[in-house]
Amino acid sequence: MIVVGSGARHLEDEIRKLGGEVLDVEIKKFPDGEKYVRVFGSGDEALVVQSTFKPQDENLIELLLIGDALRERGFENLSAIVPYLAYSRQDRVTREGEPVSVRAIMRALGLYYDELYVFDLHNPETLRFFPGKAVNLSPARAIAEYFGEKLGDGIILAPDKGARERARVVAEKLGLEYSHFEKRRISPTEVQMWPVDIDVKGKNVLIVDDIISTGGTMVRAANLLREMGAEKIFVAATHGVFAEGAIERVSKAVDELAVTNTIPTPVSRISIVPDIVSL
Amino acid sequence: MIVVGSGARHLEDEIRKLGGEVLDVEIKKFPDGEKYVRVFGSGDEALVVQSTFKPQDENLIELLLIGDALRERGFENLSAIVPYLAYSRQDRVTREGEPVSVRAIMRALGLYYDELYVFDLHNPETLRFFPGKAVNLSPARAIAEYFGEKLGDGIILAPDKGARERARVVAEKLGLEYSHFEKRRISPTEVQMWPVDIDVKGKNVLIVDDIISTGGTMVRAANLLREMGAEKIFVAATHGVFAEGAIERVSKAVDELAVTNTIPTPVSRISIVPDIVSL
Repeated sequence: MIVVGSGARHLEDEIRKLGGEVLDVEIKKFPDGEKYVRVFGSGDEALVVQSTFKPQDENLIELLLIGDALRERGFENLSAIVPYLAYSRQDRVTREGEPVSVRAIMRALGLYYDELYVFDLHNPETLRFFPGKAVNLSPARAIAEYFGEKLGDGIILAPDKGARERARVVAEKLGLEYSHFEKRRISPTEVQMWPVDIDVKGKNVLIVDDIISTGGTMVRAANLLREMGAEKIFVAATHGVFAEGAIERVSKAVDELAVTNTIPTPVSRISIVPDIVSL
Repeated sequence: MIVVGSGARHLEDEIRKLGGEVLDVEIKKFPDGEKYVRVFGSGDEALVVQSTFKPQDENLIELLLIGDALRERGFENLSAIVPYLAYSRQDRVTREGEPVSVRAIMRALGLYYDELYVFDLHNPETLRFFPGKAVNLSPARAIAEYFGEKLGDGIILAPDKGARERARVVAEKLGLEYSHFEKRRISPTEVQMWPVDIDVKGKNVLIVDDIISTGGTMVRAANLLREMGAEKIFVAATHGVFAEGAIERVSKAVDELAVTNTIPTPVSRISIVPDIVSL
């Protein structure tokens, strides 16, 4: 039994096509701006799919309201599937006086949901803030499938050391080599970067990250690979949190940019729906 | 120690003027739309003032983030003062499958706040959903003070029986008579209404309600009082949740419309700040 929130409408057709039983739900706004939700049907267990991209706070509150409605209808076991979790990058106090915002969100979701499934969480350690069972799903299968043929015997690269594990998993699924970019600040305004211990010359390359925001790093990495003689250059990310103009900037610098559909964007061509339906 | 959220900025100057010690707080939005908050200062106890009018969900999430930041800074006792509580009218399931939205909100606030203070809650029974101490403050003092002189030996009226207690309290503070409007449906499209057991002829009248939304009832009540020979007609409400055009419609029908500043509107001339500062 699957309930689809406003932030997952773009996934609904595919969920149905892959055999998910979707409950009807009415979601609207009152004239004063308050959300109204109503769920039809009953049962014991439900998966609520709600991605929490912009307007993040509305999508989050809606997820709580759906939870309340389902509990009221007698559902006993509720799972929240949140392909993109808002506030996941506010995962630590970097300056005194800041909240750990993702903690507040996880705790609030814990009021209604027994289980939480997210995709490629920015900092997986923050899963501990969710009081129930919390699972970080990987989009590696979907990304590997989408780019496998295009890559041929290419290389997978992470844009920085922290993203290396993601590159490793995608590479493993395709039986390819992988590495990451090292960065070194060489002046207050200049950072040097280079792919570590790998020869990209004549190779197709896929750079994989969790989030693309401004796309600045991706553009620089792509330009560098081009100079180093790479063949085709592809960029993939799980979450397309694109700042104004970022899609165009990255697209111009590479042969193809594609992200998953945790957030609907013009380049969300990689689907994580099979991973949801198989839950 | 008082922290003022985005939804209470309009109260800040008066809070300071009345002697409230306001902590500095930085509140902004990241380019992707996520809220960022940071509080400066430390202590044991804090009152966080945050009204949750439109954009309701943003103001609610911000209130959670401020709570998380204050806990992180070591504050032990946190009170939320929410002059207008969003979702307070979604206080029961009227059609199967609906949530009790105000319950979800109260439970979420309970994650960070020990005490909750609201003004003139639509359904005070819903206070029980808040896990800590929850208090419903009355704006009667402020309304009585604002309209006392203008009313002279006038009358206080509630627009319906359910609002009678509010009228009683305001009347008591001014030593005036009070009553309420009775309503009877006389055809599918027509409702008759009349003030019960009270003569309004030649008297100034103040109609008091909790929320004015479309203002339709207020306009009808005012027109009726005019026909019955009332002298000056005033309308007051706690929360000015005005629909488009409502302020103009009601203002045209009465001698003065004034609401409290739980929500900032052009007619929010009655201040509840003294009630906050005295907490």
